[in-house]
Amino acid sequence: MAQLRIALAQTNPVVGDLAGNADLLISWTRRAADRGAHLVVFTEMFLTGYPVEDLVLRSSFVEASIAGLEAAAARLAAEGLGDLPVVVGYVDRAGLTPRVGQPKGAPLDAAAVLHQGRVVLRTAKHHLPNYGVFDEYRYFVRGDRLPVFRLHGVDVAVAICEDLWQEGGPVSVARAAGAGLLVVPNASPYEMDKDDVRFALCARRAREAGCVLAYANQVGGQDELIFDGDSLVVSADGELIARAGQFTEELLVTDLELPEGSGEPGEFPVDAGDGTAMTVERVVLSAEPLTFPAEPPVVAERLDDLAEVYRALVLGVRDYVAKNGFRSVILGLSGGIDSALTATIAADAIGPERVHVVLMPSRYSSDHSIEDAEELVRRQGLVSRVAPIADVVNAFEKEIELTGLAAENLQARVRGMLLMSLSNQHGHLVLTTGNKSELATGYSTLYGDSAGGFAPIKDVPKSLVWELSRWRNTQSTPPPIPENSITKEPSAELRPGQRDTDSLPPYEVLDRLLDDYVERDLGREELIAAGHDPDLVTRVIRLVDTAEYKRRQYPPGPKISPKNFGRDRRLPITNRWREG
Amino acid sequence: MAQLRIALAQTNPVVGDLAGNADLLISWTRRAADRGAHLVVFTEMFLTGYPVEDLVLRSSFVEASIAGLEAAAARLAAEGLGDLPVVVGYVDRAGLTPRVGQPKGAPLDAAAVLHQGRVVLRTAKHHLPNYGVFDEYRYFVRGDRLPVFRLHGVDVAVAICEDLWQEGGPVSVARAAGAGLLVVPNASPYEMDKDDVRFALCARRAREAGCVLAYANQVGGQDELIFDGDSLVVSADGELIARAGQFTEELLVTDLELPEGSGEPGEFPVDAGDGTAMTVERVVLSAEPLTFPAEPPVVAERLDDLAEVYRALVLGVRDYVAKNGFRSVILGLSGGIDSALTATIAADAIGPERVHVVLMPSRYSSDHSIEDAEELVRRQGLVSRVAPIADVVNAFEKEIELTGLAAENLQARVRGMLLMSLSNQHGHLVLTTGNKSELATGYSTLYGDSAGGFAPIKDVPKSLVWELSRWRNTQSTPPPIPENSITKEPSAELRPGQRDTDSLPPYEVLDRLLDDYVERDLGREELIAAGHDPDLVTRVIRLVDTAEYKRRQYPPGPKISPKNFGRDRRLPITNRWREG
Repeated sequence: MAQLRIALAQTNPVVGDLAGNADLLISWTRRAADRGAHLVVFTEMFLTGYPVEDLVLRSSFVEASIAGLEAAAARLAAEGLGDLPVVVGYVDRAGLTPRVGQPKGAPLDAAAVLHQGRVVLRTAKHHLPNYGVFDEYRYFVRGDRLPVFRLHGVDVAVAICEDLWQEGGPVSVARAAGAGLLVVPNASPYEMDKDDVRFALCARRAREAGCVLAYANQVGGQDELIFDGDSLVVSADGELIARAGQFTEELLVTDLELPEGSGEPGEFPVDAGDGTAMTVERVVLSAEPLTFPAEPPVVAERLDDLAEVYRALVLGVRDYVAKNGFRSVILGLSGGIDSALTATIAADAIGPERVHVVLMPSRYSSDHSIEDAEELVRRQGLVSRVAPIADVVNAFEKEIELTGLAAENLQARVRGMLLMSLSNQHGHLVLTTGNKSELATGYSTLYGDSAGGFAPIKDVPKSLVWELSRWRNTQSTPPPIPENSITKEPSAELRPGQRDTDSLPPYEVLDRLLDDYVERDLGREELIAAGHDPDLVTRVIRLVDTAEYKRRQYPPGPKISPKNFGRDRRLPITNRWREG
Repeated sequence: MAQLRIALAQTNPVVGDLAGNADLLISWTRRAADRGAHLVVFTEMFLTGYPVEDLVLRSSFVEASIAGLEAAAARLAAEGLGDLPVVVGYVDRAGLTPRVGQPKGAPLDAAAVLHQGRVVLRTAKHHLPNYGVFDEYRYFVRGDRLPVFRLHGVDVAVAICEDLWQEGGPVSVARAAGAGLLVVPNASPYEMDKDDVRFALCARRAREAGCVLAYANQVGGQDELIFDGDSLVVSADGELIARAGQFTEELLVTDLELPEGSGEPGEFPVDAGDGTAMTVERVVLSAEPLTFPAEPPVVAERLDDLAEVYRALVLGVRDYVAKNGFRSVILGLSGGIDSALTATIAADAIGPERVHVVLMPSRYSSDHSIEDAEELVRRQGLVSRVAPIADVVNAFEKEIELTGLAAENLQARVRGMLLMSLSNQHGHLVLTTGNKSELATGYSTLYGDSAGGFAPIKDVPKSLVWELSRWRNTQSTPPPIPENSITKEPSAELRPGQRDTDSLPPYEVLDRLLDDYVERDLGREELIAAGHDPDLVTRVIRLVDTAEYKRRQYPPGPKISPKNFGRDRRLPITNRWREG
């Protein structure tokens, strides 16, 4: 047996910031060296950020990635870090002849091993995900190599993210190659309960590969995707050895006892068990095994379900604000629970002094609305102003006659326009406060309450809005959200005495139905068989199906569920399909 | 030799309208029967419409498609049309075991042969496009069969759309199977000059297959995609035999002299020449060859380039309006060329009496703007109203202090809000009037001039806006667009004396640069090498790259170029990649 101290760099790269990410590579490698690590593993496409979408089809971008990798290898050596092997993701190209159906330039979702100032091995993801939020057949061609490097006597193989999720390929080839350690750079986005799935998957693949598996995952927000970290190390028999925290940058350092490798250096072909053949490429960096006094592994505590979701939303807001160069946010505060929770998330993300709120009462606003909004401002120390909308609404209605829904929408749009104007004047990012139940049913006004740049709770159903608010109130004293905002009956207050239940079923009924229809894609008959009221099914299906255009115009927001009405659910606008 | 009269049904199905599309199937088959056809070929996924996107991942939808196909076969027979074989596209499923990475339910982009009340053959697309606007690895699994049916002695094979575009597969298997005719249902979207590419492709594939090729393409608008028809028949040596019109429904009936088939019925495997194996399945519907007096083939005249683009835009508007259930449109008329052309396209699409325009002068509007707008209304007979924005703007500015760009944006937003309010009150679809040069550079106001439901010229660069306007003015008397709207210097008129060239380079310079950067994806160095001014390259790259969020919020519009800023160009919002 031999020993290795490995470091998994659970970090937060920025898409397109090749120079900044290279700086992170150096600084985190130095931290790993300072901790005495023998190997440091960064995440998938770390040098470019992930996902880069169509940037990868530009040759100048791929060239910059490849040049950046080589420069990083040289810089590590120049800064005295050349002895420490680094596994890092980047974008490469396969050099294939162009043909119809192949992504332009034949890009690879690649990873390399850097050592002594050189790129000693290059590999690329074999299994390309093309479902949910992933479009990788659009972007990449398949890798067909499994690199193995012997480090202090241990054979270390490299696979990438989706290579763990699909059957066959790198995992089974790693076993054939006799790897003692399989390291896996990932950019695996968060979804509720995904950490449970991820650990089970790693355990199963470690057993299949017959070796320790080290899984390094990205952390941070990228548009709608939230990467939760949760990097882990699993033994060859599927037991958890070490685990990093969720939603936080961390260098997870773990001492491992590993078998010595015995295969010859060179290349050999292996049947990958998925209908393809792969080539194992083995090199020796250092043959002599190490022994040293091992330190106990770190196993971070898991967050409970509500804490996990809340942290995801906070991280999503923080990174969208920072990575897009904003310094502050602005939102409308109605006294209701959606804007109260959105403001609270924002304050937790960037600090209350950078959260600007506008109270925009109308002739239909109740007294308690204004009081509740003011109370929230007081409790959290937000920056607030009041801008009544009556005069603008009146000026409008003098110009054109509006009744019913058109008049209601006007009020929402005047508010949206006030927020956008203040955003343009002062540079705040506008946060949109709509929840998922509204978004699903189209219960919102285009360019009104749906205006803005980021929508923190767009993937949070109303029932969960309440749960998160109650949970957040247990986390600090005094509770940040006025109790009245949580307990009052929901109303858009766009006409006298209006209540959400005038237009929608009670949220606890609606949210269960939406979950079955949207997340689980059940058809009408299946929904009725699952116990939903047939008339309600017909009504809600119609609401959801005809709100597609509104959803397309909605700002992005952190994804926490299988279907957040973003890239994970794509429907035509022009669509006459109606069930029932 | 034998003879066949074939009919290609170049029709306009509606996505999701399975019942309506089935009705079309019956009525067009009757037309083909009335014309004495021996075979009628409908387009790709005709029964469901194309593209259906994530609908295909719902099992209830796939079940409805399969049931609809069987019902259509029975109904054809019941209506006395059972003797006439029908080739038609629909959605089927492959019945594979679910696995990670496989589209849910393993759907197939399928086609079937209906005859005597039965589904006699089923096949599915072999080559799946997953580039540009296509995401078919997300939606379908690959077909691996080539059906051949003997009809009056002729062996007819069926391939589907992309099967022509990629090497190997059904075309080479058709040759191996000794097919005498290859029929190809398509849903191939329009792009400028694509008709030239399409004919060259069909000619090449006909020679490769060694048989006549009959290409039936969809026509009509579906969100951003415009299907242009252009169905054609090409001889085995690649000569054009017959061709349908562009942008119009048509039954293209062609008499062909074809070789008699000689292979045995049954199934046999063939190497598809693309790394896969396919199964040929041959059935005999009727063995006896026909002879009849042939009629001369139809070859429709081609539209010239500007006529083609204009017709595409008109069709796009007409179908978006009709298929989404609107009866009228509304737009703001500024007196400038963008709104003038948009109004003209709309009037050509749905008739001037259904085109409502609003003149919304501000304190900065010049006299000629209002006169030019009024002149356009008079010439075309549009429905117009005037709604000055000054009072609303003043009411706003009393509430919050706005300067510079924020004040300019406010005016655009008040106009957008007026249009949306009138839309909500009266049920018009709001047309957005921005052009592609503005969209590329972000020269527009979020929720202002970019508000609306459909943007007819969002893929038309400003230079082409002028060309199309001049061209349209040559097509009727009096010319529909006032000359002054074409010749005046472009201005947003949001501040005194404002001109577009204050913020942007001259459009002829800008549009050439945008074409190289956006359509051709050239990097900074390549752009400079192509002769563009280095400072301008830096400035325009920055404008284009930072306008991504605005583009995401823009309404859909007809796609006429390789990159219309829709599904064909996908970039992260949070993106620090800047060249130069």
